[in-house]
Amino acid sequence: MPQPVPQAVVLRLPRYYRCLRELLNNDVLLVKSKELAEMMGITASQVRSDFNYFGDFGRQGYGYNVRNLYKNINAILGITDEYSAVIIGAGELGTVLAGDSMFMRRGVILRGIFDTDEEIIGREIAPDLIVRDITEFEKFCKSKKIDIAVLTKFPEYAEKLIRCGISGIWNFTGVALRNTGDATIQDIYLGDTLMTLCYNMKRNEREK
Amino acid sequence: MPQPVPQAVVLRLPRYYRCLRELLNNDVLLVKSKELAEMMGITASQVRSDFNYFGDFGRQGYGYNVRNLYKNINAILGITDEYSAVIIGAGELGTVLAGDSMFMRRGVILRGIFDTDEEIIGREIAPDLIVRDITEFEKFCKSKKIDIAVLTKFPEYAEKLIRCGISGIWNFTGVALRNTGDATIQDIYLGDTLMTLCYNMKRNEREK
Repeated sequence: MPQPVPQAVVLRLPRYYRCLRELLNNDVLLVKSKELAEMMGITASQVRSDFNYFGDFGRQGYGYNVRNLYKNINAILGITDEYSAVIIGAGELGTVLAGDSMFMRRGVILRGIFDTDEEIIGREIAPDLIVRDITEFEKFCKSKKIDIAVLTKFPEYAEKLIRCGISGIWNFTGVALRNTGDATIQDIYLGDTLMTLCYNMKRNEREK
Repeated sequence: MPQPVPQAVVLRLPRYYRCLRELLNNDVLLVKSKELAEMMGITASQVRSDFNYFGDFGRQGYGYNVRNLYKNINAILGITDEYSAVIIGAGELGTVLAGDSMFMRRGVILRGIFDTDEEIIGREIAPDLIVRDITEFEKFCKSKKIDIAVLTKFPEYAEKLIRCGISGIWNFTGVALRNTGDATIQDIYLGDTLMTLCYNMKRNEREK
């Protein structure tokens, strides 16, 4: 039985993923835990203990095979699984996200974008992505299997999304959602990170 | 001497801030660690141990005074300090951020927004916020004290920002910045949270 993975370790996985991609881009094929630790800003023993949760990927003294590590972390993160997603809300934030390549790079395929505003319905806001009327959402979901909803507006819509079979909500509305099913909800509170920045600035200032 | 506060505790502070604001909005004046813990999704003993880092704000058995707690956490987070900020890059993301009230609510005042694109320079993209030419940035910084740069484009510009006396960078460029001074850098990698969502969806699926 594998051990349950602490959320703190889970939160570090995307950073490992980024560091490893950078190494691959620079044609580095072997990496020691110490080197990876430096890139990550953590200790080498932390790197080794993190990897233990996912089975041992390295050989003592030789370092880790970057390509294998990258592949394994991809699989753990579910990047190889191809999820499909829709964006709810075609305002400025929805438009920014619709044009971002991060979905594709992480194996998430954007299938549609929805809004209530008749002014923008029908508009192509990204290549092959035309804004649809939100009232068509239910029918749309029945014909295509959609896993993820990126909620940029209309938090009151979450319940309906879950009823339509959405299993993950990436929530940018700043409103805490009521999880009426067993969906996975990832809340993004950008303001939180602004506060963390201010706090760390203040601490830096004091330590000078 | 106060103990150094672990970063994990620091990262929870904005969530405490949000929970307490919600309580205040609902006219709740006293809260027990158990209730706060439920709102936060952590344990009551964790709440109590977190608060110990910032001095004891509560009386055993009576619960915490919500207003005091809110005020103290505001002060700890530096919200009462009034930082001033500029946005670098007036593209879609810059525009979304410029129109967001989160700055004001957290005591951060937006002083300007800069870009290189002549098509948008001079345009008012939020009330009283006109896009300026990035070449004016240095002069602008000399006449006004600017603490924070919100970097939505032009990561190559970070060095110059730091030279101009910026002490905090909120980095949305997806590019790791070289910290050439002693600035505080808060990197935002939205793709990381998308990956965390996919991972947690996968785990939820397995546990069903």
